Amino acid sequence: MINKLVNKIKKTGAPIVVGLDPTMKFVPEHIKQQAFGQYGETLKGAAEAVLLYNKAIIDAVYDLIPAVKPQIAMYEQFGTEGLIAFQKTVEYCKEKDLVVIGDIKRGDIGSTSEAYAVGHLGQVQVGSTMCRGFDEDFVTVNPYLGSDGVTPFIKVCGEEKKGIFVLVKTSNPSSGEFQDRLVRCGGENPGQEADRPLYEIVGEQVAAWGAACMGDSYSYVGAVVGATYPEQGRILRKIMPKAYILVPGYGAQGGKGADLVHFFDEDGLGAIVNSSRGIIAAYQQEQYAQYGAENFADASRAAVLAMKEDIAQALANR
Amino acid sequence: MINKLVNKIKKTGAPIVVGLDPTMKFVPEHIKQQAFGQYGETLKGAAEAVLLYNKAIIDAVYDLIPAVKPQIAMYEQFGTEGLIAFQKTVEYCKEKDLVVIGDIKRGDIGSTSEAYAVGHLGQVQVGSTMCRGFDEDFVTVNPYLGSDGVTPFIKVCGEEKKGIFVLVKTSNPSSGEFQDRLVRCGGENPGQEADRPLYEIVGEQVAAWGAACMGDSYSYVGAVVGATYPEQGRILRKIMPKAYILVPGYGAQGGKGADLVHFFDEDGLGAIVNSSRGIIAAYQQEQYAQYGAENFADASRAAVLAMKEDIAQALANR
Repeated sequence: MINKLVNKIKKTGAPIVVGLDPTMKFVPEHIKQQAFGQYGETLKGAAEAVLLYNKAIIDAVYDLIPAVKPQIAMYEQFGTEGLIAFQKTVEYCKEKDLVVIGDIKRGDIGSTSEAYAVGHLGQVQVGSTMCRGFDEDFVTVNPYLGSDGVTPFIKVCGEEKKGIFVLVKTSNPSSGEFQDRLVRCGGENPGQEADRPLYEIVGEQVAAWGAACMGDSYSYVGAVVGATYPEQGRILRKIMPKAYILVPGYGAQGGKGADLVHFFDEDGLGAIVNSSRGIIAAYQQEQYAQYGAENFADASRAAVLAMKEDIAQALANR
Repeated sequence: MINKLVNKIKKTGAPIVVGLDPTMKFVPEHIKQQAFGQYGETLKGAAEAVLLYNKAIIDAVYDLIPAVKPQIAMYEQFGTEGLIAFQKTVEYCKEKDLVVIGDIKRGDIGSTSEAYAVGHLGQVQVGSTMCRGFDEDFVTVNPYLGSDGVTPFIKVCGEEKKGIFVLVKTSNPSSGEFQDRLVRCGGENPGQEADRPLYEIVGEQVAAWGAACMGDSYSYVGAVVGATYPEQGRILRKIMPKAYILVPGYGAQGGKGADLVHFFDEDGLGAIVNSSRGIIAAYQQEQYAQYGAENFADASRAAVLAMKEDIAQALANR
């Protein structure tokens, strides 16, 4: 699946993933009316609104981009009805041949991570039958529990030719609180070797996990590094030479095109940049206000084209 | 809800939480036959089997214990059907007046953690209506993203009088890979003050988060510390004096009664010990084999009573 992702990035010329992170305040009024008219102001009504909204955006942008990243929390907030909408969104995107990155940030002890891995990437045994649950192509994974929380995902990736992106340095303002802590490295005496931030240690581990699980040029094991921390991105790009980097934080969170160049390899591969509300709620921005709420999906298409141009320019100017 | 948990622990004399972590290999054959007979060897059949199995165990033990901890991964492995069984399990436990700790280990950037918090502990706005999703009493939270990934949960806890348990030192073998890393503390020069393991830094942060969110004696913000690391438990008990400690790893993972004493305060409060397969799959152990698969729930009851006795003895002998 990492090969498919790379090929689709080359084909579209767009190292872009659209974050399908719907909240009620992004969904245009006419969509809400349609959904609530059918199911009321209920969790099912909300889930239907989200699904209609997603489908319109997917229809408008699928030919421009290699991948989408639905954030499962935005569906889980609506309980099981929301998760049914998540599943239908995954299915719809796969019908359009998009690579689907489930942004689930799961991670637990070994036997539990195994359950997440089979539920999201693999197959679960029921009696003598193998069944598929959510069936994304990639998922994001939290590394706090260490190797035995991550390797069950890698095992399923090997079997299914799928992939993961491990959180290394996240895009949020307080990500440094633990991730930037300087960790003692080297001998018994502190200071004997330079101490290093935790995210570098996690990055090294990502490179080690990924070495045993390679696609043609990149590993099935990628990493998440926020666009809001370009200097750290530059260092992590070197520490994890075979890891594709999923870069959130562009746009609404503050990351700019020029910040992104350090995440990419010389040939313009090696990174894929996510934008969520910057694309899906483009119609609410002044820049795209002329589209109006009725044509929200056209505004999303315009925003994808602008993002593609922004990244291409930044890469050309480096 | 922390007050309710403490009161129920006092009333039952059992600082025990039963982990409802069903896997297909735990579910007795006659239950599977019943469920598969109705829905086939499908995800829905698996979900039905899990629900029947859970209900029988809950019926057999609910009067002995204060709380249950369903591990959502074990349901999520069966996709949306599994999550419907999770929700029904939560509802059934609440009907029995059990405190429900959703073991979800979520954690993300601020706006996303907010969605998890409202979906699992709070209410989500749909039009002009407020709706409840999974509606557990407590959830577990992963701290890797720092304060802005945790505080949205704390905000909802304050509004709803609910609680969280933050992962500090997990029970699994590789938890030390990142959590035990020695972190530079004190001045600019490394070694100026003693370096300390990351889990202590996270523990201090748990204490700080919890200070603003107090029940009568303990905070709404608790911590997860594995029974498999008793020495670290002793230290963390002191670092987080107001945090209730949720202790996984007893039984099947290797933790023993004598290992648990350090997690408790002098009065026998302050900690609640989880056992999952040790209780729910007791009938598969030699010790309880005489019950047979037909009477699996009676075996679970006997295992709860034995665990209660083991912990009481350990606390009496310290």
